[in-house]
Amino acid sequence: MAEKEKLSIVVFSGDLDRALTAFMLATTGASMGMEVSMFFTFWGLNIIKKNEGGIRGKGLMRKMLNLINRGGSKRLKLSKLNMFGLGTWMMKRLMKETNMPSIDEFITMVKNMGVQLIGCTTTCGVMGIPPEEDTFRSEVEILSGATYFLGEARKSKVTLFI
Amino acid sequence: MAEKEKLSIVVFSGDLDRALTAFMLATTGASMGMEVSMFFTFWGLNIIKKNEGGIRGKGLMRKMLNLINRGGSKRLKLSKLNMFGLGTWMMKRLMKETNMPSIDEFITMVKNMGVQLIGCTTTCGVMGIPPEEDTFRSEVEILSGATYFLGEARKSKVTLFI
Amino acid sequence: MAEKEKLSIVVFSGDLDRALTAFMLATTGASMGMEVSMFFTFWGLNIIKKNEGGIRGKGLMRKMLNLINRGGSKRLKLSKLNMFGLGTWMMKRLMKETNMPSIDEFITMVKNMGVQLIGCTTTCGVMGIPPEEDTFRSEVEILSGATYFLGEARKSKVTLFI
Repeated sequence: MAEKEKLSIVVFSGDLDRALTAFMLATTGASMGMEVSMFFTFWGLNIIKKNEGGIRGKGLMRKMLNLINRGGSKRLKLSKLNMFGLGTWMMKRLMKETNMPSIDEFITMVKNMGVQLIGCTTTCGVMGIPPEEDTFRSEVEILSGATYFLGEARKSKVTLFI
Repeated sequence: MAEKEKLSIVVFSGDLDRALTAFMLATTGASMGMEVSMFFTFWGLNIIKKNEGGIRGKGLMRKMLNLINRGGSKRLKLSKLNMFGLGTWMMKRLMKETNMPSIDEFITMVKNMGVQLIGCTTTCGVMGIPPEEDTFRSEVEILSGATYFLGEARKSKVTLFI
Repeated sequence: MAEKEKLSIVVFSGDLDRALTAFMLATTGASMGMEVSMFFTFWGLNIIKKNEGGIRGKGLMRKMLNLINRGGSKRLKLSKLNMFGLGTWMMKRLMKETNMPSIDEFITMVKNMGVQLIGCTTTCGVMGIPPEEDTFRSEVEILSGATYFLGEARKSKVTLFI
């Protein structure tokens, strides 16, 4: 049997627009029969942090950093035209009107389609995020570093850095 | 006869600097004999919107979104150091001085070199842009979605997300 | 003997967070036995500009542009949450605490691991940067354009645009 073609997506950004694009491509790839992996790193870690998460991290500075950068799929903003939340609010309304899933729904959806969600442990340190399983949503299967990602990317037909 | 190697470029950003980079790579690829496709999505749709375009979209919210995000190749700004237009103005002057084509000229140029310009219909909805041919410049040949893009990317030697 | 697999990284961004990611991936790739090239273009040129560099460039406008965009590995800022330097300062502290190398140390490190550092001459013009060897750090081996990059990317197993 032929092996499935692989699609690897690095989700570096935690912006709503880039996150949306990543999930649209992941669902499309999976529905085309590709084997899809999403690597969440740096600001992208915010997407897969638990929404209910309190202020975590050891030490005052980590606590501060996590306060100003709380993360969680519901707190993502647009990279442009955020305009104190107005642009983000408008896009979320248009997403609903055009029946586009929310980021929360996308996470469940890709999980059900067999997409692998990976949290990058290498960048947890500099983001002041504890690299532990209960920081992240249950849909995140693997916590791993850059070596794991490059290993996958080498075997991928398409690799995107978003 | 050997098939041409493919280069696929996703133009997600509508920033002047990223747009320039995308067009430089597209012209370079085409002049090296590659078969080049450019996929304009999200803010990148602004690059291929008609400059003369009025405020489009059904409903007040879409009209507002199109007003604050008018788009058109002549309205692109730098991602950094825009400084209320000063940085963008300086870069445009340096582009002229160094005989770099403008974005408008680049669109004509890539078209003449056989580069395929594709507008992403999947993101038109959330951007409040009518996914119709007359929203976009005549150089845009194809309006299509993420499936079309991944289909091309799978066959590509190089795929870049800009 | 089998040829080494190639990894090509375009460093378009001059943000501290994206620069860090690029260097982490470059060191990881090299340690996995890949042949790694880093292409610094646009704002990424700031990363490889000499730190001590004065205000360069011919003509007043180039001098101004270089003043507001001085560059040098020590002047990089976060793409998000810079907060007048506070966010950047916090991340630099966390980098130290987690024993992450600084950008300066990363440049030396990748160089020692055989990573090729290339400065893009095509974008020097629009950035107002003199495309000369002594603008850049000694670790930068090659000054070249988009053709060189695409030539490498065609032969690469993985190409990332950061």
